[in-house]
Amino acid sequence: MLWDLIGSGAAVLTMFGFVPQILKILRTRSVQDVSLVMLLQFSLGIFFWLLYGLYIRDNILIVANAVSFVTLVIADALYFKYRNG
Amino acid sequence: MLWDLIGSGAAVLTMFGFVPQILKILRTRSVQDVSLVMLLQFSLGIFFWLLYGLYIRDNILIVANAVSFVTLVIADALYFKYRNG
Repeated sequence: MLWDLIGSGAAVLTMFGFVPQILKILRTRSVQDVSLVMLLQFSLGIFFWLLYGLYIRDNILIVANAVSFVTLVIADALYFKYRNG
Repeated sequence: MLWDLIGSGAAVLTMFGFVPQILKILRTRSVQDVSLVMLLQFSLGIFFWLLYGLYIRDNILIVANAVSFVTLVIADALYFKYRNG
């Protein structure tokens, strides 16, 4: 029961980990200190996790990484929107 | 074989996902646009993944999240070092 909470907490916290960064970009419209390499590296990595989840047909991997991937696409788009000021 | 590469690639890319952000902070000494909530949320989430990995005795979970956790502690420390400069 405790360990279910820790596992679920881990999943939720990391799955939505980029949401605070997205909200901050929307608020400040500035991405000067945000690493584009970080965003692209996570985007590709999470996409690979999603593909791997589909391959091994693991629903938790699929859902968690599909959600994360959507947040990363949003973060990437905002980065390019605001990169020049 | 292809799927081993995709799975391993996913693991390596996300495990070291915060390294480019750390390098950028070291280079610019500026964290104004980096979300502290993002860093702390990932730190806690990855710590929970590490605990969960120890509980289910899964070496891949343990190693990957131990490495990620170290990078997040570094990122957190750099954030507080440069937040007022």
